[in-house]
Amino acid sequence: MTASNTATPRLAEAPPPGWQSRYDAIFDAALAKLHGEGRYRVFIDILRNKGSFPDARCFAGHNGPKPITVWCSNDYLSMGQHPKVIAAMEAALHDVGAGSGGTRNIGGNTHYHIDLEAELADLHGKEGALLFTSGYISNEATLSTLAKVLPGCVIFSDALNHASMIAGIRTSGCEKKVWRHNDLEHLEQLLAETDPSLPKLIAFESVYSMDGDIAPIHAICDLAEKYHALTYLDEVHAVGMYGPRGGGISDREDAARRLTVIEGTLAKAIGVMGGYIAADRRVIDVIRSYAPGFIFTTSLSPVLVAGALASIRHLKSSNVERDGQQAAAAMLKRLFAEAGLPVMSSSTHIVPLMVGDPVKAKHVSDILLAEYGVYVQPINYPTVPRGTERLRFTPGPTHSPAMMRELTNALTEIWQRLDMPLAA
Amino acid sequence: MTASNTATPRLAEAPPPGWQSRYDAIFDAALAKLHGEGRYRVFIDILRNKGSFPDARCFAGHNGPKPITVWCSNDYLSMGQHPKVIAAMEAALHDVGAGSGGTRNIGGNTHYHIDLEAELADLHGKEGALLFTSGYISNEATLSTLAKVLPGCVIFSDALNHASMIAGIRTSGCEKKVWRHNDLEHLEQLLAETDPSLPKLIAFESVYSMDGDIAPIHAICDLAEKYHALTYLDEVHAVGMYGPRGGGISDREDAARRLTVIEGTLAKAIGVMGGYIAADRRVIDVIRSYAPGFIFTTSLSPVLVAGALASIRHLKSSNVERDGQQAAAAMLKRLFAEAGLPVMSSSTHIVPLMVGDPVKAKHVSDILLAEYGVYVQPINYPTVPRGTERLRFTPGPTHSPAMMRELTNALTEIWQRLDMPLAA
Repeated sequence: MTASNTATPRLAEAPPPGWQSRYDAIFDAALAKLHGEGRYRVFIDILRNKGSFPDARCFAGHNGPKPITVWCSNDYLSMGQHPKVIAAMEAALHDVGAGSGGTRNIGGNTHYHIDLEAELADLHGKEGALLFTSGYISNEATLSTLAKVLPGCVIFSDALNHASMIAGIRTSGCEKKVWRHNDLEHLEQLLAETDPSLPKLIAFESVYSMDGDIAPIHAICDLAEKYHALTYLDEVHAVGMYGPRGGGISDREDAARRLTVIEGTLAKAIGVMGGYIAADRRVIDVIRSYAPGFIFTTSLSPVLVAGALASIRHLKSSNVERDGQQAAAAMLKRLFAEAGLPVMSSSTHIVPLMVGDPVKAKHVSDILLAEYGVYVQPINYPTVPRGTERLRFTPGPTHSPAMMRELTNALTEIWQRLDMPLAA
Repeated sequence: MTASNTATPRLAEAPPPGWQSRYDAIFDAALAKLHGEGRYRVFIDILRNKGSFPDARCFAGHNGPKPITVWCSNDYLSMGQHPKVIAAMEAALHDVGAGSGGTRNIGGNTHYHIDLEAELADLHGKEGALLFTSGYISNEATLSTLAKVLPGCVIFSDALNHASMIAGIRTSGCEKKVWRHNDLEHLEQLLAETDPSLPKLIAFESVYSMDGDIAPIHAICDLAEKYHALTYLDEVHAVGMYGPRGGGISDREDAARRLTVIEGTLAKAIGVMGGYIAADRRVIDVIRSYAPGFIFTTSLSPVLVAGALASIRHLKSSNVERDGQQAAAAMLKRLFAEAGLPVMSSSTHIVPLMVGDPVKAKHVSDILLAEYGVYVQPINYPTVPRGTERLRFTPGPTHSPAMMRELTNALTEIWQRLDMPLAA
């Protein structure tokens, strides 16, 4: 019997009772585990107010939207509300409509996509670029495809690499060697002990987003050249924010030309949505032609592409947003340190406050939202290792000194209330 | 030596010449393979004209944008240009800005997302729904996570399932049994020979997009109940287009309540971008809490979410677009058949024309674009099996009878010119 397209009659009897509840019990146990560890996630329900970020409205509770201040957005430079970005998106919406209507190969390749890829290639000094629907899928698709195309490839992966990079490496099925975070000696040891005839790829990030530290890009490229390895750099937390044109840490340190692939996002400092890679024409063509996560998905909406294009063009020539963000981050770190709050050492715009316990981190966050109108999300496992749960603040150019002082005072009060230790 | 955050000095000597060319040679060979098989893909550079779809502009060649008619868009109902969708997106853009600024857990959960998930749950008669950045990632993330959470799970996968479903099944690492396309007997045989104590999941699609045929949903649910398997149905090519409210084939056949997970897209008939699943509250909570492809990615732009919300609400109560599309598809199939063109049997809105050779399919497509201003993409491997290369037409409510007659005449002329067989 083969299928016909007409509906077959339904079973007269109900299915035997009980079998579905066996599945339910497994699902319930998986959820109970999260509750038990204090890391079950509740999504806060908010809307930002265009033009007055970091102000927003929170829909939790019963008294209608309540004004809050957002302290944990990755729209680091408030470009998601920049007039040029909004105007470009509105123009595209009225020129071509909402979605692209297809994959890049089948009806979904628009002139906006081509323009943005050229702009991104230029930003990173590469021959080409390729857009993806997210940074996650750009990492997953590119790493898995690169390693599959190179027979016997070994990937050297920094221990703190993002989940999307790990997903791509796993999908490739290739051999993976994990080097201790930013530890060049360990990386060299692993490279030296690997068969010189095998293709190699070193995968790392520039700014590690949960700690705020930075990779030694040139030193890693030195090792890559010594051991004949390709390099893959995730710049998602740096694009737009570092370097004279916003090309990231590799732009600031003049290292872009030494890297095989630079990966970035349009969803953080650029303020919109989507991901991309930049590389030489040959690598771009291979990924474009072989990566399932690129081939089999509807392309980015032209509305988003137009917004990202306007944002990147603006940030190539404007330092106002970058300078404002760096000043805000420096001030908030200083205020936290002066108040004795456990601010983690960070050489970037990210300001993490260590708590070390998922339940306490959520408690502090809940009090901040309920009593102070401050929204900062507790960060827990699997985003950070267990026992290093934290609050992660991302001050930007539109967070005022008064907001920062209020925040510091609120945290100090809560730290005391909950008997958590403050430095002398 | 451990990493510092300052740049290290660059190597004084240039790297040994030649080693990078070994990588280049591998990449070149991968690309040469595609050229050799006639399936190297060239993306056409177009912009659609809002308000007059299927009209568009093509940027290929040297004489400026040239007007074309799009025949291969997955914006099946032209909802990407519907005034309600455009207005909703414009309103959201001005209310909250461009991007969401974070993952769903960290700053990127907006009131729009919550409203759309409620709307999608209602559309499919389920307790909950969950948004993803694409249909690809919704399949990949959900299937891989479901199978990982259920210890020992065996997935039964239709042989023509989409690449994103296959990716998710592979990622899960679970045992996979592939049943011949829509062959219930084979499916039952595989179910019967599997250890009854193991968790099971049957994964299939409602409308298979490259052939246009439909799965026997109720019969598959009968087998699922008999053998105690969960079910996963991909409705991406049916959502918005079938059923009294546009809930897909499972809506039309009143089968939604029998399915564990229904997966859909916002990027085809809905006209915008993004993907989702609908299921009971427990399953949604598990995927939300455990799927890396959901957790570690910036949420959909609220602008897209607002557009999708308007589109789905409209299609829940309007049949004009669905009826128009079905009428257009029926007419085009009839015209092709009357002209003796090799139109494949299809019980849906998809009108595939078999060519059976990648070079010929591209040749026909090139002539259509250059001489007739008709854009239809040749479909080749890996999207369809080798030897079944085809042209795939997606007529919609805005393709007029005159356009269809012109297209049929053009194809007949080209078929004769290239000495390709026409039926008597």
